[in-house]
Amino acid sequence: MATTVQASTFGLRNVKILQGLSQERLEILAAQCAWRTVEPGKVIVARNSHDRDVHFVVSGRVRVTSFSAGGRQVTFRDEEAGEMFGDLAAIDGEPRSADVLALDGVLVASLSPEHFRALIAAEDLVRERVLQRLAALVRLLSERVIELSTLGVQNRIHAELLRLARAAGATGARARIDPAPKHADIASQVSTYREQVTRELSLLTKQGLLAKDGNALVLLDVPKLERMVEEVRSEA
Amino acid sequence: MATTVQASTFGLRNVKILQGLSQERLEILAAQCAWRTVEPGKVIVARNSHDRDVHFVVSGRVRVTSFSAGGRQVTFRDEEAGEMFGDLAAIDGEPRSADVLALDGVLVASLSPEHFRALIAAEDLVRERVLQRLAALVRLLSERVIELSTLGVQNRIHAELLRLARAAGATGARARIDPAPKHADIASQVSTYREQVTRELSLLTKQGLLAKDGNALVLLDVPKLERMVEEVRSEA
Repeated sequence: MATTVQASTFGLRNVKILQGLSQERLEILAAQCAWRTVEPGKVIVARNSHDRDVHFVVSGRVRVTSFSAGGRQVTFRDEEAGEMFGDLAAIDGEPRSADVLALDGVLVASLSPEHFRALIAAEDLVRERVLQRLAALVRLLSERVIELSTLGVQNRIHAELLRLARAAGATGARARIDPAPKHADIASQVSTYREQVTRELSLLTKQGLLAKDGNALVLLDVPKLERMVEEVRSEA
Repeated sequence: MATTVQASTFGLRNVKILQGLSQERLEILAAQCAWRTVEPGKVIVARNSHDRDVHFVVSGRVRVTSFSAGGRQVTFRDEEAGEMFGDLAAIDGEPRSADVLALDGVLVASLSPEHFRALIAAEDLVRERVLQRLAALVRLLSERVIELSTLGVQNRIHAELLRLARAAGATGARARIDPAPKHADIASQVSTYREQVTRELSLLTKQGLLAKDGNALVLLDVPKLERMVEEVRSEA
């Protein structure tokens, strides 16, 4: 499942939260980390477990999600290479709040909570970024609570398509999401069933707002989709 | 609406995040803060506004909530005397993520983002508590996203009653919530309409699980209510 690999300051140089640290500090951190590769689909952190390491995604992508006892999945977000996860448990010592899965082959460098706390205490830059990161998570989750509380499923699907388009760097009236997101992934992002996503995307296609283009999904009229979401928001 | 009152280290001594600080530091902070009283029902912080002060609740209670353009309310939490709010904007400089209302007469001490950042940099204790507080908020909001995504309205109302009972310090099979929560408050906590809360509480009363006792609401069989929530969670 996991292969131990050799420590490398090179890998840590791409971790956002560590940027600007001295070569000396990175060498110390690289030696303090446990390094391993994780195969696609494997669990790196399991919800409710008691390990408290902080993990840096050196390469690959991970999904922060939550499987209920009955198997229903609620996805929080995907983290790219350069990101960190697992800091909550290192900060407060509580069990894991979510499951984290490898989306592809992932190289992960894991730091003990003691070393992480020492790092925060010693490096103002890192402390500042950890605060910013937690503040951003609170904002993201607050928005999601508001969306789940005030928007219907259709509109949450529209909002998610717009978010994916923005994440793909789209700025104009048309937006290309390449590769097209899986219906099941959209469903677990907006808390509904895959079948409902499939139904809604068909409807948007019939309305001339959506098209498939090879492996990509194309939003044909971003401003109209934005208006549809805004109208419902302002009525809620 | 707001009356300016005199600075007082006495008031800051009860603020949790500042506990353990020296008399000297508290005196400096008390002088740096703007002090004012806010009448019940008035807005202290408005969602999307650009002020960035951190606020300490010296006395009274506030509600962290969000009003949509159409007037629908989503409540995040209530904060008692001794708590802090408004730290997100001070940390990341972004607009306010929520509305904060005075629930009763509130004495609030407000610190500029610059003074707040200097405080975090100088005092390890405070920095640690800010990190813990943000981590706790991320956990609370993640749980709420999972609840909204996997539980139906009935079960969210049951889960909220159990949460209120725990907050009131209940540990046995019976729990007394005094004063009884307003139906509209429960509704905005679990993202539904007041009418649905009224309907569900009537049903629980008929089932012998709930009773009114003067101003209080009494849960008559906490273990049974817990099992009802757990069963649905494990099937989700």
